[in-house]
Amino acid sequence: MTAAALAEHIAGVRLIDQHMHGCWSAAGDRARFENALNEANTEPLADFDSGFDTQLGFAIRAHCAPLLGLSKHAEPRDYWHRRNQFSEAELAQIFLPAAGVSDWLVDTGYAEGVADIGHVADWSLGRAHEVVRLEQVAEQAAVSPGDYASEFERILSERAAGAAGTKSILAYRGGFDGDLTEPSATEVTVAAARWRDTGGVRLTDRVLLRYGLHQALRVGKPLQFHVGFGDRECDLRKANPLYLRDFLREAGETPVVLLHCYPYEREAGYLAQAFNNVYLDGGLSINHLGARAPAFIARLLELAPFRKIVYSSDGFGPAELHYLGAALWRNGIHRALSGFVDNGDWSLADAMRVVDLIAYQNAARLYRLAIKDEGTRV
Amino acid sequence: MTAAALAEHIAGVRLIDQHMHGCWSAAGDRARFENALNEANTEPLADFDSGFDTQLGFAIRAHCAPLLGLSKHAEPRDYWHRRNQFSEAELAQIFLPAAGVSDWLVDTGYAEGVADIGHVADWSLGRAHEVVRLEQVAEQAAVSPGDYASEFERILSERAAGAAGTKSILAYRGGFDGDLTEPSATEVTVAAARWRDTGGVRLTDRVLLRYGLHQALRVGKPLQFHVGFGDRECDLRKANPLYLRDFLREAGETPVVLLHCYPYEREAGYLAQAFNNVYLDGGLSINHLGARAPAFIARLLELAPFRKIVYSSDGFGPAELHYLGAALWRNGIHRALSGFVDNGDWSLADAMRVVDLIAYQNAARLYRLAIKDEGTRV
Amino acid sequence: MTAAALAEHIAGVRLIDQHMHGCWSAAGDRARFENALNEANTEPLADFDSGFDTQLGFAIRAHCAPLLGLSKHAEPRDYWHRRNQFSEAELAQIFLPAAGVSDWLVDTGYAEGVADIGHVADWSLGRAHEVVRLEQVAEQAAVSPGDYASEFERILSERAAGAAGTKSILAYRGGFDGDLTEPSATEVTVAAARWRDTGGVRLTDRVLLRYGLHQALRVGKPLQFHVGFGDRECDLRKANPLYLRDFLREAGETPVVLLHCYPYEREAGYLAQAFNNVYLDGGLSINHLGARAPAFIARLLELAPFRKIVYSSDGFGPAELHYLGAALWRNGIHRALSGFVDNGDWSLADAMRVVDLIAYQNAARLYRLAIKDEGTRV
Repeated sequence: MTAAALAEHIAGVRLIDQHMHGCWSAAGDRARFENALNEANTEPLADFDSGFDTQLGFAIRAHCAPLLGLSKHAEPRDYWHRRNQFSEAELAQIFLPAAGVSDWLVDTGYAEGVADIGHVADWSLGRAHEVVRLEQVAEQAAVSPGDYASEFERILSERAAGAAGTKSILAYRGGFDGDLTEPSATEVTVAAARWRDTGGVRLTDRVLLRYGLHQALRVGKPLQFHVGFGDRECDLRKANPLYLRDFLREAGETPVVLLHCYPYEREAGYLAQAFNNVYLDGGLSINHLGARAPAFIARLLELAPFRKIVYSSDGFGPAELHYLGAALWRNGIHRALSGFVDNGDWSLADAMRVVDLIAYQNAARLYRLAIKDEGTRV
Repeated sequence: MTAAALAEHIAGVRLIDQHMHGCWSAAGDRARFENALNEANTEPLADFDSGFDTQLGFAIRAHCAPLLGLSKHAEPRDYWHRRNQFSEAELAQIFLPAAGVSDWLVDTGYAEGVADIGHVADWSLGRAHEVVRLEQVAEQAAVSPGDYASEFERILSERAAGAAGTKSILAYRGGFDGDLTEPSATEVTVAAARWRDTGGVRLTDRVLLRYGLHQALRVGKPLQFHVGFGDRECDLRKANPLYLRDFLREAGETPVVLLHCYPYEREAGYLAQAFNNVYLDGGLSINHLGARAPAFIARLLELAPFRKIVYSSDGFGPAELHYLGAALWRNGIHRALSGFVDNGDWSLADAMRVVDLIAYQNAARLYRLAIKDEGTRV
Repeated sequence: MTAAALAEHIAGVRLIDQHMHGCWSAAGDRARFENALNEANTEPLADFDSGFDTQLGFAIRAHCAPLLGLSKHAEPRDYWHRRNQFSEAELAQIFLPAAGVSDWLVDTGYAEGVADIGHVADWSLGRAHEVVRLEQVAEQAAVSPGDYASEFERILSERAAGAAGTKSILAYRGGFDGDLTEPSATEVTVAAARWRDTGGVRLTDRVLLRYGLHQALRVGKPLQFHVGFGDRECDLRKANPLYLRDFLREAGETPVVLLHCYPYEREAGYLAQAFNNVYLDGGLSINHLGARAPAFIARLLELAPFRKIVYSSDGFGPAELHYLGAALWRNGIHRALSGFVDNGDWSLADAMRVVDLIAYQNAARLYRLAIKDEGTRV
């Protein structure tokens, strides 16, 4: 009875997906799909390889195939054949509503070939909110006519006004190690001039990256950081969130959200305990871990206080990912918490309460999202 | 029958708690208690947070509530209300004897507001021994009239004579990375003069920290290191014990004990295998991991030889912690070892023997503690 | 039925052991045997310790004792007594064939006191292939009369022609951090002269190490790296494979195989996803983890694509290790995959297919080994 009640509660709880990107908006070939099942590789998969022969590939066949009318564990060729009978918009309208997500926080920093916020809302039958990528603001300021700092401040202020939060991909632009203090106005002016001279594309200048982070702290809305696992342009060694310690000590009240975190989820949990304003999620990692996601989700439940853990899918591209993140999270949190309850370490009531905290209550508080409905799936 | 025999053995085995601090000696409010459930944060918990909504908070409600006559998983408000009906001395006399610990090794380096060694012994009905903190010896030598090095040596020699071992909190005073060789006498003289000029408080001078470590090696009693997880004054990245490699190669015969170790328990286990004189425990971490402690305890049982693993609670403040460490260790070691036995990897007899090694035999050998009783709980 | 079918498949599958060394060729005493159960320590075990009181020691008693006619979990003294009744050649002829390995890839870089390739083949009733250690080639070139670079190239070319691959122990010769680009011809000439002047023993010169790696890339056969856990001459902190990122970006098409990987198996799995030419195994670690090997094997199945994972024992010395690696891998992969199947995350057919990939198909493709038999044990 206990197990059934918890399973039912988890299956029914609504989610706030606090970090994701658009799903594809236009058709593509099988190579595009298989490559999208590999996050880390920036080159086309080798001939001998297949994106299906991964934990993510197996998870899609297990969890997504039934939504397309296929049997569980459908063969890759059958899955691709069936998927190919739908447009990306149709796939989105199948997978996004099935995720049970009421609110999507959309990182619009890289949007080529993917749906915009409006389509995410329409296709999912949910609400969508923007997360503003700081490096994109910088690139916009670089090509604006006025003073770089003033332009950055103006653009960020305007875009953040209607947004849920901001995001930094510093992990992809040099990593977390090294100085992250606020640069002086003069340093910013000099660095901006140098960068503009070189065309103002793909910001990697450390001074300007630091400037952007401190401007985001001033805005005060939650600041998300890509942490850990991503594609190989990110040096995983320098994406260890422990390098952020000094920055976090200076961050004041602005919430900082550590995204993905693999394989540093235990370090991230420590930071969530150490700083009142630090949060973490396991988006992206959960999808790519597939059958191993439960072990990862259990590790997210170590040092991090339960009011500091949030949910995301980090879906990008295939609409499957926006659904699968939710399916695997529900599966994994059930595995972890039912274990705690069965062993007598947690009460059932506490388990259900923690599910609600992670699923939507923490994110609603953090991003000041109104919760109109009752906590059950939309 | 197997499972029952192992469970019974673990429930009954006496422990040597080889690293802890005093429990509170005077009354405090609920904020003090809730903040004590968060180790890493050095600021008061945020208004939206609660120390109860953590693995440690849940573990206290599960394991400690019954000792206060409450039902398992009692609500936080009920737990606090009930706890508040006792003095800290009364709580200590409930929780400390219940831990089944025969000998407590008390780190006296930070003792504000907590019981002294005598009270630990009295309240627990056990024996208590001192562990001398090196940085405290340094601070005592700094305010002594004579030559710093002579004073350090004299104080350490006097205090260590009656003590079980020494301890370093180098992890909190700059971290493990960098030079840890022995400084020259001249370097010590110069550094001591400089430090005394600035008042001789809170030692962070690297030369004097290094000097203290090498003096402790000379004393020859086990030298404990805070490793990994602690409050955020410790840079967790620099508390990786792998930075100690060169120091350990020079340490000679003096035993070195790596405390806590999260999230570096696998690295610490490696060092325990690599060096005849290196030991490890999982104190502090076990309490804060609560329902996740079994997974951590299992990882402590990887590369570390079984004669090199010891037990501690690292309890500090709430007397619950001195009991809970033992309760969670008994629970976790049972989970791990019964798994090994059920899978046919270990014999039941070996499992029981390893329990005894970790519970008290290794520590008794290491600290030269007489074992008068038979290995069952005091 | 499912569980039985998977168990039967795993028990019967043949393996390619893609990285190992010779087993002992001559008799030794109990101290040699016990010390061989500790990988990390380079000194004799302390008097109070025993190599048997480790996960590896327990695993040998559980899994190897029956092959010597002893009961499972035989006492250490009985195990040693019985083992001592056989010659090392006889032990090899018991344990090697029992591993179910068709092909052994023998690292011949350190061969003192162990069997050569011919004996490995003869005693195992299998095929054996050489893996050429680059640092040994360097040491051969150092004592050759001609130009160092020409001699290195000539020796490597000759030895690699008949070999399956090459191997680097850079982890033992300074670690992965720092520059790994190709040095200029002049730099090599200067460094070689300097090294030859000092006798040309034990290569630690960074320029020549880098030179060797890039020559191996030119040869094009798979290049194996010792990664992570090993003896304490290797600084485990600098054996983190993430330091290899820049090297891997430059490595082109030559396959790179990350060996052992503990405690960096998740980082290694990430690299296997990030680079088309990167592979990983868990040899050595699996033996030393014993009852904990299943958890490690499960972590190897996280980010690494399933066509990029290979098997090895890294057996060296006791012939038990060449068998035990296989026994523990079979045991651990069964634990992990049966869990995935039971939870509905994987199909049984996929689980069996992934077993075949890791057991021999990936290695056969990687090393271009002919598969004459049908995939069942030799």
